[in-house]
Amino acid sequence: VPVGPGDDCAVIRLGRVKVLLTTDMLIEGRHFRRDWMSPEEIGAKAMLVNLSDIAAMGGDPRFALLSVGLPRSFSVSEADRLFRGMREVARKNGVTIVGGDTNAADRLIVNVTLIGEATAGRVLTRSGAREGDFIYVTGTLGDAALALRARRHRLPPCRIKIGKKLARDRRVHSLIDLSDGLAGDLRHILEASGVGAEIDRGAVPVSPGFLEGAKRLGLDPDRLKLAGGEDYELLFTASPPLPSKIDGVPITKIGTILPKRFGLRWIDSQGRRYSKKIYGFRHF
Amino acid sequence: VPVGPGDDCAVIRLGRVKVLLTTDMLIEGRHFRRDWMSPEEIGAKAMLVNLSDIAAMGGDPRFALLSVGLPRSFSVSEADRLFRGMREVARKNGVTIVGGDTNAADRLIVNVTLIGEATAGRVLTRSGAREGDFIYVTGTLGDAALALRARRHRLPPCRIKIGKKLARDRRVHSLIDLSDGLAGDLRHILEASGVGAEIDRGAVPVSPGFLEGAKRLGLDPDRLKLAGGEDYELLFTASPPLPSKIDGVPITKIGTILPKRFGLRWIDSQGRRYSKKIYGFRHF
Repeated sequence: VPVGPGDDCAVIRLGRVKVLLTTDMLIEGRHFRRDWMSPEEIGAKAMLVNLSDIAAMGGDPRFALLSVGLPRSFSVSEADRLFRGMREVARKNGVTIVGGDTNAADRLIVNVTLIGEATAGRVLTRSGAREGDFIYVTGTLGDAALALRARRHRLPPCRIKIGKKLARDRRVHSLIDLSDGLAGDLRHILEASGVGAEIDRGAVPVSPGFLEGAKRLGLDPDRLKLAGGEDYELLFTASPPLPSKIDGVPITKIGTILPKRFGLRWIDSQGRRYSKKIYGFRHF
Repeated sequence: VPVGPGDDCAVIRLGRVKVLLTTDMLIEGRHFRRDWMSPEEIGAKAMLVNLSDIAAMGGDPRFALLSVGLPRSFSVSEADRLFRGMREVARKNGVTIVGGDTNAADRLIVNVTLIGEATAGRVLTRSGAREGDFIYVTGTLGDAALALRARRHRLPPCRIKIGKKLARDRRVHSLIDLSDGLAGDLRHILEASGVGAEIDRGAVPVSPGFLEGAKRLGLDPDRLKLAGGEDYELLFTASPPLPSKIDGVPITKIGTILPKRFGLRWIDSQGRRYSKKIYGFRHF
């Protein structure tokens, strides 16, 4: 097993193919609320969070297996809409749904297993970051956490194409997807790679209207964007220069990989460096 | 995709390898009761029912992914015992657990995805039965259904080795595992293969003490053994002769594949042929 538990996907070899495997279970009331999301959106989200794990290794998703637990309160038409949401996202990403298991349950449970292949034989893990690498993120951070605080769910973006381009680029050394929030997921890279890092808080990209939205809800925008979670953007380290966009999505430099002894430190708007653990929000 | 949804496993090609994929979700109160089974047994069962799907294609199980929902009432030690049950069965069958996903849940949920390889490049499906084939089962039937009626769970047997031997034997034409009961699962072979069959009810093998046990509980032993479900033995069709044991497990001839127009018919103890739909038990 080239990569076992602890990275975004497991990597196994079958014949000459490096195969990526990942599984994620979404449980009603824990990972989503049915009154905040349509059945199509729940299905789409279940597929997208698994696709994000494949993107986080630069992989090419190929096949999906579904296991679903359907509550009695779920109508046949709602179940159809759930599966339609999954099929639609699968189709757009070249994924064939090859099987599954449907059960009765008390609450809606959706488990997706994805099988992918390494792009050009290369797998980008959390452990390849090197001193002097720049640290980049795709898209904008904090939007999903802000939406949750406004009692809405935001569908994860799909970064498969970007992940595959990164896997083909030898300047890129490590990669992870942002599910727990920047601060937490960056620590996974630092620990796996045995390095430290500094992040310029002001450089972390946010979407138009994000600051105003956070202010309206009385929330700290920094905590939302640095530790909010569920961004499902890609965080990666590379030796520059990189393009400012890949596949039409902005790529932003937010920091630098340092020797391990620096740990994780932040740069504030006055250019001061400091170390402080940043905790995330609890969503429910 | 060589075999899509509708057989025991999906079969995909990755490079030159035929890969078998299966997933099964066990939900507390639907598939097991915690007061009838230890955590180790629940873990073992979750792995064994998935192994049975690989055995049902004659495959070689290689890797497993686990998704688990743990209720608050489940202690850390119980969770350890659950995983120990899964690991033990995986280890005995040459399966490497490569990853997983652990969540909080209201009820215990265990989802296993297994990845296997075809044995000697051959996959035994439900659709290969030929007129004149004899119909065989491994082991004995009805024990699991009887145990459930006595408010106990019986762990499924593991028929991986037998399945692999059957895949290497060109006399064997079709294969399925018995999860829903003989009558129901045989119909899957008949429909997929476009054939009929007759089954000698008296030939269907039962374990010592089975008839007495059924009598004690006031249950119809024929219904238990023909439609009880959860046997997880193998049902297959082959051109004779076959050995009376494979891997130490008795192999019993119970009937013959006929032209499609005969449907599924039974032979009673007086040698009379009749057609009648046999319904299973509901376990909870």
